Amino acid sequence: MIGTMPVAACEGGLIQPTASDARPLGARHTEELASFVIESVWSDLPAPVQHEAARAFLNWVGCAHGGAFHSAVEQALPALKALSGSQACTVIGRGVRLDPLSAALLNGLSVGAHAFDDAHVETVVHPAAPTVAALLAYAEQHRVSGSDFLHALMISHEVQCRLSCALAVGPAACHVGHYMTGLTGAIGVATGVGKLMGLSAKQLVWAMGIAAMQGGGFRSSHGTMSAAFIPGNAGRSGLLAAHLAANDFTCHAEPLSSPNGLLSVVGRPSYPEALTERLGQHWECMNVAIKPFPNGCLIHAATDVCLELARLHSFSRGDIERVEIQVHELSLALTGKDEPKDSYEAQVSLHHWAAAALYYGRADLNEASDACVRDPAIIALRRRIFASVASDLRPDEARASIVLQSGQRLEAQVSPHIGSAKRPLSDEQLEAKFLSQAQDHLGTERTRHLIALCWRLPLALDVGRAAPGFWG
Amino acid sequence: MIGTMPVAACEGGLIQPTASDARPLGARHTEELASFVIESVWSDLPAPVQHEAARAFLNWVGCAHGGAFHSAVEQALPALKALSGSQACTVIGRGVRLDPLSAALLNGLSVGAHAFDDAHVETVVHPAAPTVAALLAYAEQHRVSGSDFLHALMISHEVQCRLSCALAVGPAACHVGHYMTGLTGAIGVATGVGKLMGLSAKQLVWAMGIAAMQGGGFRSSHGTMSAAFIPGNAGRSGLLAAHLAANDFTCHAEPLSSPNGLLSVVGRPSYPEALTERLGQHWECMNVAIKPFPNGCLIHAATDVCLELARLHSFSRGDIERVEIQVHELSLALTGKDEPKDSYEAQVSLHHWAAAALYYGRADLNEASDACVRDPAIIALRRRIFASVASDLRPDEARASIVLQSGQRLEAQVSPHIGSAKRPLSDEQLEAKFLSQAQDHLGTERTRHLIALCWRLPLALDVGRAAPGFWG
Repeated sequence: MIGTMPVAACEGGLIQPTASDARPLGARHTEELASFVIESVWSDLPAPVQHEAARAFLNWVGCAHGGAFHSAVEQALPALKALSGSQACTVIGRGVRLDPLSAALLNGLSVGAHAFDDAHVETVVHPAAPTVAALLAYAEQHRVSGSDFLHALMISHEVQCRLSCALAVGPAACHVGHYMTGLTGAIGVATGVGKLMGLSAKQLVWAMGIAAMQGGGFRSSHGTMSAAFIPGNAGRSGLLAAHLAANDFTCHAEPLSSPNGLLSVVGRPSYPEALTERLGQHWECMNVAIKPFPNGCLIHAATDVCLELARLHSFSRGDIERVEIQVHELSLALTGKDEPKDSYEAQVSLHHWAAAALYYGRADLNEASDACVRDPAIIALRRRIFASVASDLRPDEARASIVLQSGQRLEAQVSPHIGSAKRPLSDEQLEAKFLSQAQDHLGTERTRHLIALCWRLPLALDVGRAAPGFWG
Repeated sequence: MIGTMPVAACEGGLIQPTASDARPLGARHTEELASFVIESVWSDLPAPVQHEAARAFLNWVGCAHGGAFHSAVEQALPALKALSGSQACTVIGRGVRLDPLSAALLNGLSVGAHAFDDAHVETVVHPAAPTVAALLAYAEQHRVSGSDFLHALMISHEVQCRLSCALAVGPAACHVGHYMTGLTGAIGVATGVGKLMGLSAKQLVWAMGIAAMQGGGFRSSHGTMSAAFIPGNAGRSGLLAAHLAANDFTCHAEPLSSPNGLLSVVGRPSYPEALTERLGQHWECMNVAIKPFPNGCLIHAATDVCLELARLHSFSRGDIERVEIQVHELSLALTGKDEPKDSYEAQVSLHHWAAAALYYGRADLNEASDACVRDPAIIALRRRIFASVASDLRPDEARASIVLQSGQRLEAQVSPHIGSAKRPLSDEQLEAKFLSQAQDHLGTERTRHLIALCWRLPLALDVGRAAPGFWG
């Protein structure tokens, strides 16, 4: 299966087709999606979907503050300053302003830098980082109400998730080396920004097409600063696409499912029905989970099961002979890095997080640090981690055993892990995550104030002016 | 064969491997390419390669003036103005200044707008539009000598051509719906700009990687404004990538040929040896041809063979019963559009150009106009054009017969067509092409002066200041 994304069903049966259900490639899926976006009304969204939008925004702002001084941001900011003259939009947490495209790039990069943002685990797409970055850049230049903002956010997420399903969830497949956020992120963003701009159906299709023409990115970026560059670039690309389309810059009338469009070129094959099936009834974006740990979403189950081992059993670390962890095949394919050399590589190292979670009973930003990655005790434990694939496990499940030197075996299982879509972080846990990321920079009081402002976003009349504390 | 790029040999035998010659995927091709770029010295380039660089530059400037008021540029410029605050760099021919990234985008778009730029026909990559756009944006901000500029230009072309060969020339293959300039353009550009910046080998590899992470674009863009957006975006992306890498923003140490890198993900399979084989001895960029006609490079042979029919034979247009044209399979796969509705679709319509060339005995910007595309006489003749594939023809070859109502058959063949790499436009023809594009805007005298300035570029001490006439 390595080399193509494996077959897996999206929750709720979005993708359960028979061959006879499928319309031919070339049917007007993009147009149908555009009509849905235009007709969608915030007040028609189910309350849980509306609340999830507020949670996604809150998490994004927390991650933006958490990533604002990340080394990837430190390296990117001077380069973008040199290329950007305008001061229209804010780089969150940095007191710096750039042109809208560069600000969208930097904020998306910052939110993705710790890999602490969110994930649709079946397709490994991370929709919020580019989405909110682009919407904020737009909202700093134009009056946008809080509810319109959150509506656009969920539309972007929905488009990204459906497109990613069309490429990677059975019966679709694509090369596992594609970075889904790079392929589909900008298209969702263009749709969300386009909704705010009031684009016509034709313009929305063009916006999606122009965004698709900028889509790309590969998993060879992982373990480097470029992994977070991809969501940053997706936000920038989607923002530009919407602006071009608003000005009647044209693209194909069916840029996604025509024979030389995104789905046909990248899919092996694709399943374009995922774009339109039960639109408005089924919200695939509800399968986006806010991350509980700052690492790749395919490591979450392994991380959680090791935390569970540490919670359930008492053992001395020195007594561990070996740790056997079973995970979904995609998890091992993308995160089976047993000797990470720094915090970047650790983001995609199941072995590191299993060791750190077992050792410290925690999996937070401290465990993501270079110091922890290079700690001899962690390295020693990492070498005792043995990961393998179990065909009965889904991507959000794992089981593990510690084999002690005495021969005793201690076991645990998570199905699904904490912070998965089926077992999401509570609002209180979300606030605690926000505090853990922002309070070092902002202080506790200001952080709590910012959290309260985020929760009140649905009532804001003008997002760009409602809460300067978001931007500073 | 449709669906993958067909097997074809690059001139001079760059790609004639046996399986046993190939190093495994994952070998350090990118690093080897970076070392070559760093060690390359302008004075070591063969004189024909140096001269081709000057020709490429001249052609680019002519196309920039020719495209400066194209409708695609008209639609894009206001959108980019709204998003760009800086005035650092010039939009050629428009008296407008934008930030460097936006200027690179606009100028690449303008040069590609009429599809009159250049082409490496075996891979259908168009290297100059993004390259010169990005190098000029850099040269407006930094002191760059003319020879350094032209050196960087040829390095960008060479990297693009080799990468494109690695993806699309046998034994490599990829989906024909990929737009090669979108996939490989930014990587070449990043290398060229990186050479000017004096990047280290490690930084150059990162620059290529960051550029690869932005690579994309599909042939569903063709026939719309987005077709020219792709080279524009490639220039912008490569420029940004070089700046990020210069600031030690990291990427994979082997972003192109590692298992989840560009070549492995997109290739079916790829042939990474094309990146490094006989580097410095063989210049694949010498197979880039400056376009003789403003249309897709896979239409050039059909256009030329129809011009040849008009030259060789005397016949009345009303006597034409049918025209039979034989071309390479890729030509028909990508340009077999028999009812183009406007000038954009005509760029990829073999039928339009065959009809227009036969009717007018010319194939210039007039024949590319909406007026010509919608002319009833041309439409009537277009319906008498019948194109088919001949397996013995290369992409730069075609044969054609006019069948008259009398039953008489008039024949012609081009192998290769005028303006192909093997039968390039002369310097004088290049100047005539430049004049045809620029003199309406600039007047004949100023255009001739600009042509002279372009030829003198190798002697310029500071490209950004040597010739304000380039920019205005």
